[in-house]
Amino acid sequence: MVGSRWSAASPGRRRGPELERAILDAALEQLSTVGWNSLTMEGVAAGAHTGKAALYRRWPSKADLVADALRTALPPLGRIADLGSVREDLYALCVRMREVMRSRAGQALRAVLHECDHGHADRFRGLIWSGLHEPAHGLIGELVRRGIDRGDVRPDATGPLLADVIPAMMMYRAKVCGSEWADEEIAEMIDGVMVPLLRA
Amino acid sequence: MVGSRWSAASPGRRRGPELERAILDAALEQLSTVGWNSLTMEGVAAGAHTGKAALYRRWPSKADLVADALRTALPPLGRIADLGSVREDLYALCVRMREVMRSRAGQALRAVLHECDHGHADRFRGLIWSGLHEPAHGLIGELVRRGIDRGDVRPDATGPLLADVIPAMMMYRAKVCGSEWADEEIAEMIDGVMVPLLRA
Repeated sequence: MVGSRWSAASPGRRRGPELERAILDAALEQLSTVGWNSLTMEGVAAGAHTGKAALYRRWPSKADLVADALRTALPPLGRIADLGSVREDLYALCVRMREVMRSRAGQALRAVLHECDHGHADRFRGLIWSGLHEPAHGLIGELVRRGIDRGDVRPDATGPLLADVIPAMMMYRAKVCGSEWADEEIAEMIDGVMVPLLRA
Repeated sequence: MVGSRWSAASPGRRRGPELERAILDAALEQLSTVGWNSLTMEGVAAGAHTGKAALYRRWPSKADLVADALRTALPPLGRIADLGSVREDLYALCVRMREVMRSRAGQALRAVLHECDHGHADRFRGLIWSGLHEPAHGLIGELVRRGIDRGDVRPDATGPLLADVIPAMMMYRAKVCGSEWADEEIAEMIDGVMVPLLRA
């Protein structure tokens, strides 16, 4: 048993944000090693060299802690530099989306979704939405507008569902074909679907 | 308790296919009323006025029975008549896909997926694949070829991922936005994505 005596036993007294960071790291570590079902508040507290009370003060439940750990660890999608054509820009975006899903937090998130019950799944799926799909939508809109300005995208490519195509297809083939989206498959989607859809 | 005495107590002695039909109907009825978790072999046997033995002779488990009931009850996607343009043909296909998902078996299938565990979910998702998405892929390919012959689809619209776009987008918005695909949303997808993607 790991008790609150650990709070003071850590190397030096850690302040709020530092301790919080250590707890979130330990939660992600537990998640990646023992998985969602076996993760316990005790185990995370031990991993972070603190006591359970320090966890419960911040997160009322294991689901709250895990959601926060995944949310903060998921790499941001970031920006896509202008690579000179909408084809290259969108290809880079897909590679970046794949990187996010293959990151440690992205993999842990997918594993949790395969393990947790339906109530929790809705919440964790929300993290993929807010951390990946929503920013991807914004970014796709930006890359399409960049293409319109550049002249390699038709000026009327403004429909609200255009930004769905890439995230929808990435989710679809991942779910129904177990696809990990190899480079050639991304190229196939960009050249076979996105470029014909958008070209001027 | 409903015992095997019911086997002979049904109105007249039913033969194999007729009894099987009655059992599958009763399973779908149970599924639509009490749901996956509360469905029992006993309850289905009672509903079909037969004994549990008649069920277990044909389906080793509740999951086998339910999968068979859903598979046989899901309406076939069928064919799409030539409506004169790829726009109308694809719109009709989407309406038909929506009808399949809104059918009694389609709704039961979605409900089961929200209730069952991960092992069973993979199997039941397979039914959506084989009963809806796979035939939709075939049909989209057919409608695109029809459009090429007609002249309203570009002749090089032959990429392997083209047939993914509609099923992927329908699944995506259903899952992440809870969309039921209103007529206007289907029209938006056809006019904003599919027609620009395919037009000659």
